Amino acid sequence: MVAEIIAIGSELLTPHRTDTNSLFITDHLNRIGIEVVLRTIVGDDRERLTQALALALQRSDIIITSGGLGPTEDDLTRECAAAALGKTMYRDSSLLNEIEERFRSRGLTMPSVNLRQSMVIEGAQVLRNPRGTAPGQWINHDGKMLILLPGPPRELQPMFEEICIPLLQRTGPPSVLLARSLRITGLTESAVEELAAPIYTQYNNPVTTILASPGDVQLHLRAKASQYSEAKSLLDELSCQLEAKLRNYIYSTNGDCLEKVVGNLLHQQGQTLAVAESCTGGLLAERITDVPGSSDYFLGGFVCYSDSWKLNFLDVPADVLEKHGAVSEPVARLLAEGVRKKAGSTYGIGITGIAGPSGSTPSKPVGLVYLALAAPKETQVLQRLYPGEREIIRWQSTQAALDMLRRMIVSTMK
Amino acid sequence: MVAEIIAIGSELLTPHRTDTNSLFITDHLNRIGIEVVLRTIVGDDRERLTQALALALQRSDIIITSGGLGPTEDDLTRECAAAALGKTMYRDSSLLNEIEERFRSRGLTMPSVNLRQSMVIEGAQVLRNPRGTAPGQWINHDGKMLILLPGPPRELQPMFEEICIPLLQRTGPPSVLLARSLRITGLTESAVEELAAPIYTQYNNPVTTILASPGDVQLHLRAKASQYSEAKSLLDELSCQLEAKLRNYIYSTNGDCLEKVVGNLLHQQGQTLAVAESCTGGLLAERITDVPGSSDYFLGGFVCYSDSWKLNFLDVPADVLEKHGAVSEPVARLLAEGVRKKAGSTYGIGITGIAGPSGSTPSKPVGLVYLALAAPKETQVLQRLYPGEREIIRWQSTQAALDMLRRMIVSTMK
Repeated sequence: MVAEIIAIGSELLTPHRTDTNSLFITDHLNRIGIEVVLRTIVGDDRERLTQALALALQRSDIIITSGGLGPTEDDLTRECAAAALGKTMYRDSSLLNEIEERFRSRGLTMPSVNLRQSMVIEGAQVLRNPRGTAPGQWINHDGKMLILLPGPPRELQPMFEEICIPLLQRTGPPSVLLARSLRITGLTESAVEELAAPIYTQYNNPVTTILASPGDVQLHLRAKASQYSEAKSLLDELSCQLEAKLRNYIYSTNGDCLEKVVGNLLHQQGQTLAVAESCTGGLLAERITDVPGSSDYFLGGFVCYSDSWKLNFLDVPADVLEKHGAVSEPVARLLAEGVRKKAGSTYGIGITGIAGPSGSTPSKPVGLVYLALAAPKETQVLQRLYPGEREIIRWQSTQAALDMLRRMIVSTMK
Repeated sequence: MVAEIIAIGSELLTPHRTDTNSLFITDHLNRIGIEVVLRTIVGDDRERLTQALALALQRSDIIITSGGLGPTEDDLTRECAAAALGKTMYRDSSLLNEIEERFRSRGLTMPSVNLRQSMVIEGAQVLRNPRGTAPGQWINHDGKMLILLPGPPRELQPMFEEICIPLLQRTGPPSVLLARSLRITGLTESAVEELAAPIYTQYNNPVTTILASPGDVQLHLRAKASQYSEAKSLLDELSCQLEAKLRNYIYSTNGDCLEKVVGNLLHQQGQTLAVAESCTGGLLAERITDVPGSSDYFLGGFVCYSDSWKLNFLDVPADVLEKHGAVSEPVARLLAEGVRKKAGSTYGIGITGIAGPSGSTPSKPVGLVYLALAAPKETQVLQRLYPGEREIIRWQSTQAALDMLRRMIVSTMK
């Protein structure tokens, strides 16, 4: 069984938009052993879309579309799919009720344009969409499967992962594709490659891929077997060797992001955290609080975006600011120790740096960042010089600060 | 004249690769007024590739392929294009000499596999490739143009920009494609559609597309004309009517994000801002400081993630917290007024709410958010109930808070 994907929307044919849905769908299909053999991107054009759907129905077993299920004039997927299949559509009254209820619960009346979202292709299974008004549809036709998904990733992803993948798994022969992600920080992609390649290249199964973004490297392992236990032991064998080599550079083996790993550690230890950040402008607090339940261990933060903020709220003395400058080792230390003391938390983090593009001096270039961690027994300060753009410098700074805290907590647990 | 792009290579059908060549080609075609109406990604598969090329030759005027021109077994583009066109290939001896010379100049002998790179489709114009061994080919056939380009971006880009674009410009009448984005917040996609559709559906040129994400709707207008000034006045005419209808729901007409628009307003007015945020956990400060130069107008923020933070640093009285709860109109107001006073800023923003998934009570559901703006003359407070996930609730809250400030500044300017 092979699949093809059709991404629908004129905006996807413009130069600055990437069709990320297809990558997500491909990833999840691959995991259950289904290969994607074609991808098409087509605009909101009735004739071209109908033709693309009709062609796909001729040549592939599974056709998955994304987009074009919205309420507006240019949302044509339902109509074009019906035309390509030679089927009619009907208004599903229970679906209409749900859509109306969605608006009603927010104190709104459903606009009449949303009526078209309750149109269902004859014989289709409706795929409920709790996150939006556009339901998906699944049509079995002449041994083929046509699956229509909404375009917004936050609606498409759970619908595909939670409803479609289990249904697709039931159609083929039993085979298991298991994946595991080892997430690493503090090493470059090439450093990880040098350490890991001599190990993983000895294996054809699992297949290993390296994915790298600034401050984060992932070793993605995928094992294929006829049974779960067999796939798992293939993963265990390789993973175990990689973990022995990369040791505590690995911060997670289950795909968890660093802020979640740190949050779990704080929660387990019954410890608390407060932060005082300058150049990262709230990003550190934002990442920490992005984790549900973070109010258990995160007390709060100061975004010290001006000298007066550092002076008035963190008690950084004016003479220290004047002598060393706001971007300096002593100021980072005072921010971390100050916020820890003021908040009464177990740990305090302080960040100060130059995210650019402006603000640099000959002795303090863009990318220079001081990271401080105040703990019960000591305060650590790191100096870093990050290459790249503002956004990357800010991200890397928060990643390094979280990693300092992770290593500190882990070291106290031993 | 419309174009379609076929990206060739099995690696492009894996989950972690993006086809950047198509974005580059689209950008350069758009600039000379040629629209891309379809994109296909196909693997190194003889039958599927030949079929894809044959279909494209039926339905589009210009077909551009990337990839599959290398020397190996799975580089099938030449053969499949010849088959789709019904043409033969011949060995081009001067091309062969060039390829051999390329190896010779590096002290190497040409491997025999590279022989196939000297095969040229009957009637094709050879597109020289100074950066690699894979020449491109340009075939005119039955009024269509088929252009085969190599896959590596550093080979494809100069070949397309320097050779193909000038040739394409000579084929059609001179034309320009101009785009404009109207960005809107405070209205749902369907509400925008109801207001805007009666206007934009009267125009075939510009073409209008609606893009929506939570708290943000974009009307994307693209006009086509023979001259820049004509395209611009087509855009102006439609844009003007849409702006008259959607008025101050439109926050930007040049694609700028809301935090940048607000930043520009503060900068122009010489005003300053400070924030105190609870459920958004630093996201508001992070968005504001994501704009380079934001230290000109942003003084700092408090991430009040615990009651003690609100009590100790913003002086929210304990009895108010106890009587009304942390998520309440009075607390939002006190946060905004408190941070404004403490920071000595022109404006203060306060946000408190329940981002979920936990923390709700029967009277205070997940998604309930209070947004407050303290200005020199008054304090405004809004109550909102956002549907969706934690991430969306947090995002929408910051979007609404920034929009309150935008409207306030704009109103004081009149």
